[in-house]
Amino acid sequence: LAEKKVLIVYAHQSAGSFSAAAKEAAVEVLKSKDCSVEVSDLYAMKFKATATAEDITGEVKNPEHFRYAEETKLAWDEGRLSADITEEQRKLQEADLVIYQFPLYWFTVPAILKGWFDRVLTLGFAYTKEKRYSNGIFKKTKALLSFTTGSQETMFSPTGINGDMNVTLWPLQNGILHYCGFQVLAPQIFWAPADAAPEGRSAMLAAWNTRLQGLLDEKPLFFTPMDYFDCESFQLKPENVEKCVKEFGPTAGTHCGKPLPPNNQMKPRGN
Amino acid sequence: LAEKKVLIVYAHQSAGSFSAAAKEAAVEVLKSKDCSVEVSDLYAMKFKATATAEDITGEVKNPEHFRYAEETKLAWDEGRLSADITEEQRKLQEADLVIYQFPLYWFTVPAILKGWFDRVLTLGFAYTKEKRYSNGIFKKTKALLSFTTGSQETMFSPTGINGDMNVTLWPLQNGILHYCGFQVLAPQIFWAPADAAPEGRSAMLAAWNTRLQGLLDEKPLFFTPMDYFDCESFQLKPENVEKCVKEFGPTAGTHCGKPLPPNNQMKPRGN
Repeated sequence: LAEKKVLIVYAHQSAGSFSAAAKEAAVEVLKSKDCSVEVSDLYAMKFKATATAEDITGEVKNPEHFRYAEETKLAWDEGRLSADITEEQRKLQEADLVIYQFPLYWFTVPAILKGWFDRVLTLGFAYTKEKRYSNGIFKKTKALLSFTTGSQETMFSPTGINGDMNVTLWPLQNGILHYCGFQVLAPQIFWAPADAAPEGRSAMLAAWNTRLQGLLDEKPLFFTPMDYFDCESFQLKPENVEKCVKEFGPTAGTHCGKPLPPNNQMKPRGN
Repeated sequence: LAEKKVLIVYAHQSAGSFSAAAKEAAVEVLKSKDCSVEVSDLYAMKFKATATAEDITGEVKNPEHFRYAEETKLAWDEGRLSADITEEQRKLQEADLVIYQFPLYWFTVPAILKGWFDRVLTLGFAYTKEKRYSNGIFKKTKALLSFTTGSQETMFSPTGINGDMNVTLWPLQNGILHYCGFQVLAPQIFWAPADAAPEGRSAMLAAWNTRLQGLLDEKPLFFTPMDYFDCESFQLKPENVEKCVKEFGPTAGTHCGKPLPPNNQMKPRGN
């Protein structure tokens, strides 16, 4: 059995943080399962977050009207993306599983991790118009968001003031990960560890440790398959709307005007 | 009548872009309406996107276990936030209206603008545990997302593969803007201008121009008021769930298990 490769993209400033402990747990358990593990420690790397012309070595095609997606596509074709991007792309391409470990900042990833998505997942390398979603380039790779919140779980319920966590997860899990084809595993959410007692934090880490043992065998979340959609409008084909609703239900984003299914972005179907 | 102050936070690399034209239109129209307009041109400013200890002048309280929210709260109390953050906070505090102009990157703001949110909206300055949402610090200020998409509008419908745009907007509009109290005006969405013919782009800019004339008098989007929620769990008080659903309907996030109301994050109620 070939060794599995894991990439952990880690975004916390402090080695004393709960996020650091969660990252360390993943490194230890996955190594003990004979995985090879690479960590991209974004703050330690001083990872550049902003998408600029400096991400391209040599001339850009249209400096007067610089368009990041088109320019990085061309640079990727010609091997002229900057060294830091190329190195992250290499790690991603080799990985069987990618874990993103971060504290939730303003209902999404911190800017340094958003910068990793903006700069590493370039057109051509990570997606094309033809290769997206269930036809996506990374459809053989698993990916997982593992994050801490500042708010308690109740605030992120369907009657909570922050709104249903499934809504907040949709743009990240469907719009970034699944867009590139990744099989998205259920998120690992550490609810407000900063407000928990030490025993509460230990219990959260212990549960993560247990989950990590079987992580590579987990079933991914469900997203509506590409062939249910019209290939011009990318809307569900009319004959598929009812079928989709009845067969496997709507998703948090492609909800078809139906109530959002509970935990659609938090648990695989049938669990 | 006092002159109104407008802040435009602008995030595009190129002066030749559609985003630049949309920003310029806002500057011109609002100046013609006797507003004073400031622009934070994030790429031109080389705005720092990542939240680090360098955002604090002098010693941090706990270097072993650096916690960004707590450290920046303390630094803000003591006037020790970095000069670039302090300057953006000054602009924000003076503004009657804030327009965020950007291209949608991966279903949310580009990293450089996420960095502006992460670093400028600090604990104490922009929110506290007591002052959030409809009790928020910026409840007298209006804010608006104005952005271009790469995808066509059909892809962001409730039967589209990108999912309902209202879902994608929720974390940004509720989780960042309304969280700080802002009255959120309907987003200005420029659907796929890069794929449009020149006349299509001109028509989009003309519609924006027209809207800008009356922008300061627009009614904001609806969010469930704070006093409908229990002040411990921040869930709707049980007696309010039905009332809320019947009186003004669920929102995209606080949906109470009901179908998402169409355009909840895109149009004010009653329009």
